[in-house]
Amino acid sequence: MYLEKITSPADIKGYGPAERKALAQEMRDAMLRRASIHGGHFGPDFGAVEAIIALHTVFDSPRDKIVYDISHQSYPHKMLTGRVEAYIDEAHYDAVSGYTNPEESPHDFFNVGHTSTSISLASGLAKARDRAGRKENIIAFIGDGSMSGGEALEGLNVAGEMDTNFIIVFNDNDQSIAENHGGMYREFRRLRETGGTAPNNLFRAMGLDYRYVARGNDAEALIAAFEAVKDSQKPVVVHIHTQKGKGYKFAEEDRETWHYRMAFDIETGELKRPYTDPFQETTKAFVKETAKANPNFVFLAAGTMGGIGLSPADRAELGSQYVDVGIAEEHAVAMASGLARGGARPVFGTYSTFFQRTYDQMAQDVAVNHNPAVFLSVGASMYYMNDVTHLGFFDIPLFANIPNLVFLAPASLDEYAAVLRWSVEQTAHPVMIRMPVMGYEESPYAVRTDYSALNKYQMVTEGSGVALIGAGNFAQLASAAAAELEKEGIKATVINPIFLSGLDTALLDALKEKHSLILTLEDGILDGGFGQKIAAYYGMDKNIRVRCYGLSKEFYDRYRSKELARAHHLTAEQIAADTLTTFKRPRTY
Amino acid sequence: MYLEKITSPADIKGYGPAERKALAQEMRDAMLRRASIHGGHFGPDFGAVEAIIALHTVFDSPRDKIVYDISHQSYPHKMLTGRVEAYIDEAHYDAVSGYTNPEESPHDFFNVGHTSTSISLASGLAKARDRAGRKENIIAFIGDGSMSGGEALEGLNVAGEMDTNFIIVFNDNDQSIAENHGGMYREFRRLRETGGTAPNNLFRAMGLDYRYVARGNDAEALIAAFEAVKDSQKPVVVHIHTQKGKGYKFAEEDRETWHYRMAFDIETGELKRPYTDPFQETTKAFVKETAKANPNFVFLAAGTMGGIGLSPADRAELGSQYVDVGIAEEHAVAMASGLARGGARPVFGTYSTFFQRTYDQMAQDVAVNHNPAVFLSVGASMYYMNDVTHLGFFDIPLFANIPNLVFLAPASLDEYAAVLRWSVEQTAHPVMIRMPVMGYEESPYAVRTDYSALNKYQMVTEGSGVALIGAGNFAQLASAAAAELEKEGIKATVINPIFLSGLDTALLDALKEKHSLILTLEDGILDGGFGQKIAAYYGMDKNIRVRCYGLSKEFYDRYRSKELARAHHLTAEQIAADTLTTFKRPRTY
Repeated sequence: MYLEKITSPADIKGYGPAERKALAQEMRDAMLRRASIHGGHFGPDFGAVEAIIALHTVFDSPRDKIVYDISHQSYPHKMLTGRVEAYIDEAHYDAVSGYTNPEESPHDFFNVGHTSTSISLASGLAKARDRAGRKENIIAFIGDGSMSGGEALEGLNVAGEMDTNFIIVFNDNDQSIAENHGGMYREFRRLRETGGTAPNNLFRAMGLDYRYVARGNDAEALIAAFEAVKDSQKPVVVHIHTQKGKGYKFAEEDRETWHYRMAFDIETGELKRPYTDPFQETTKAFVKETAKANPNFVFLAAGTMGGIGLSPADRAELGSQYVDVGIAEEHAVAMASGLARGGARPVFGTYSTFFQRTYDQMAQDVAVNHNPAVFLSVGASMYYMNDVTHLGFFDIPLFANIPNLVFLAPASLDEYAAVLRWSVEQTAHPVMIRMPVMGYEESPYAVRTDYSALNKYQMVTEGSGVALIGAGNFAQLASAAAAELEKEGIKATVINPIFLSGLDTALLDALKEKHSLILTLEDGILDGGFGQKIAAYYGMDKNIRVRCYGLSKEFYDRYRSKELARAHHLTAEQIAADTLTTFKRPRTY
Repeated sequence: MYLEKITSPADIKGYGPAERKALAQEMRDAMLRRASIHGGHFGPDFGAVEAIIALHTVFDSPRDKIVYDISHQSYPHKMLTGRVEAYIDEAHYDAVSGYTNPEESPHDFFNVGHTSTSISLASGLAKARDRAGRKENIIAFIGDGSMSGGEALEGLNVAGEMDTNFIIVFNDNDQSIAENHGGMYREFRRLRETGGTAPNNLFRAMGLDYRYVARGNDAEALIAAFEAVKDSQKPVVVHIHTQKGKGYKFAEEDRETWHYRMAFDIETGELKRPYTDPFQETTKAFVKETAKANPNFVFLAAGTMGGIGLSPADRAELGSQYVDVGIAEEHAVAMASGLARGGARPVFGTYSTFFQRTYDQMAQDVAVNHNPAVFLSVGASMYYMNDVTHLGFFDIPLFANIPNLVFLAPASLDEYAAVLRWSVEQTAHPVMIRMPVMGYEESPYAVRTDYSALNKYQMVTEGSGVALIGAGNFAQLASAAAAELEKEGIKATVINPIFLSGLDTALLDALKEKHSLILTLEDGILDGGFGQKIAAYYGMDKNIRVRCYGLSKEFYDRYRSKELARAHHLTAEQIAADTLTTFKRPRTY
């Protein structure tokens, strides 16, 4: 065994080819076992084993600085930089995050998880090194899927003018999360087919030096290539051809499924705990039905299907009504605007955390132009991804405050389906929809079919004294808190706003008559969010108090949802208890 | 005269070469006179005259659809599409906006003003056309300066896979607003030098067909090229070499100065009303002094110097401590994070409206990583650019709600200078600074030198009853309103928060003792902004009322600042009058 003895990259520098080969096998074995039990990214790590061994053989980390794009392929790096225990000892599987993390190790330089950032981040390290007069190597390690993202392409262009040491390892496994899309990928294929000699070379067109390594899973070939560029005083791209998922049959054969995998059975590759998400199923059914019914309907994806789950078969069924633009969220939003302007009915869906890349496109390309494109935001919730780089609950301040953009948070499966249908039928507004992660199992009211009367909130339960306005995922929580209050003799009003981008002033005014306490509940940070608008609306009213429930402004990392909810009083019991202390007591005095 | 008779592109379709030449001259004459009186974009329009004549000769607008990038070069287009009066009749100069505008004409498809969007927007039109089974040509017209922007590069990649009619006219005048930066521009030069045959071709590397037109200011050459690609069923780039500012000596010689020009004397080129901005002067002095004192200081720009005004001489003086990354705001923010991580002290400055492109980089690349980069936001005010595409006052909801990012709004020249100095001295926080556009002429308090005690607001005037919290540009307005109130016998408290990203809860709690009315004033939209945080903070307090002053959430276009201020009660007199009706009266009952 080599792996368990490695405490730092120095330990592998003396290895010969056979030892490196054995080490690579041990690394894959460890990752396979860990993934089967713990889940995590799979294909990116299995493909990058030799490249990372070679980097740590040739370069002197952390003096030489390696910046991983997305860093979902950094498991081998973590194994070689003092964190092997987290990969070989089940009791320590949770000791590391799924991404590079400067708090874990001096070998990690950034906490990253979004794509296409490595070149830009590393260019800053290179420039800082030059200012300080140091001489270390700066390396950005970036996959082909990330290369379609604007930030990466901007970075290539800037790198092309930097007259200094800057090494970009382009890890080309011919696969994004799904298949790649875009003209550059045809040309990358030609480069692979010609040993890097084909004429149309994106990197050279950006002013960069270039070299090609055909055998990107051969540590010896990689070591030779890296030795050749080490200490280079010009920016250079080393294009390496690797195999995603290498070393595990199922992952090699189905690269999309095995990009990321929850716990599975090693023999069969099957998930240990398969699940279906009813909101995802509803989305898929809606997309397929609408595409059939309306030839002008187009579904846009940006490299990731995870949150919506249209399978390759679903996509084939959609044909040219499905467009994957690759990892290029900004383009997707602008293209959606163009589609709507041209009379089509586009829906662009991706994770909330990736919609963060599109504020300006949403404001300028879409909302200024009133173009009725539809945006489907997945995982906008504290009950979804909990890595600090993938949090989805900053979207209300971000998008609900853009003029003209109608921002909807449905509260049940039926309401979600209704909102989806309305959004593509109407042509008056751009619409963003928070795909629910939870809500009423059965809608406690007849679900509307028409949402054209903007900012019309839904009365769920009419009571008095206290009104709970629970948005989207938290509408059901508002009803649950009201049920707790009812036990104490308070029959509270419950409202589902549906619209988070505007106020139902008529309803809010009407509440004044019989209510003195308004509670707002939102599945997101409070700062700049929905509740603060309600609080400000009642700001001059002496007889109405407002308490806003939600998350305080902070980047939470790998939290437990239940604990985070409790810390923010986001349980029915806590909300009821809070209310009893502030509401009931005055009446008993 | 040809020009004044043109009501639609049909009028020029029968023209021969001589008539087109005469028309081009008339168009330049009209634009020169208009610019000298009215101001506006200059170089982009003078360079594009022949290209736009050729487009409207060959293509059938609006059936064929031309999408202009940024659209600051669309004046010739407007002249040929029914809006000539706005260019030849001084009384109608204001009848058109400075950008394409669907409300003005069916020949305009989008209201745009930010760079790098045309390919993505047009790709949507192309896809919508295909879905609808129509056959028109779709044309994106984009300058070389815009090509470094991520959205444009994402668009090229997607276009490279679209198996349909899609024409990209690449208008290469070898100049951004300032000089171009990045490796692609060296390769563009080689393409120009070789008549389009040089091997490193960005467009071909993106999978696109390509042709080159050396004489981009020769309508006849352009017509031939456009005829050749008309109705093409494959995406194609037509690379045309034009001269920015063509036809006016000063503009040809100094392309940066003449990108945009306020009213000037035609004979001398000199501005009619030269001005200097003290905040800009302070910024320049700060940048130059800091660069001298600290070799690790780096100033980053993204293609535009407008708001900060470092001249070519200033930039030369800064040497390698000045980095212009081209139009690539996302890269700039990420690179700033890398610089800070590597021990440098970066300041990235650009317009507030362009910072909108960087939310995800600011959150992920910078704030999650706590990297102490400094961001200088210019024109975050309703008293700055008033085109709907260039509004700078959406930044508080956008950036002040990002965890870890310290968002500062200084209220005087001295405070601005102090905040700048502190921001690059400290290394604990990423900082965004709103460069003031107005404020206290003389600070009414001793300006702090250290802002490390986060969220500590500044007491300006201590009074009772009413407290005005006036942020940044509106701090002085708060004092002015307090002066009005004082005439009525109310000695109000005035507070300058400085920090818009957090609450001074100790101060807010202390206010409860002697105050019952809090007014917040911010130079931005109210939704998701600063005042709503204050209102929510006091939400449960029966004895405090809060009124928030600012703009309602809307895209305003070419407004008059005074009128907009008055409509939102953003004058000292109105604030005082509002206060007297809600505050004084209860005391007299």
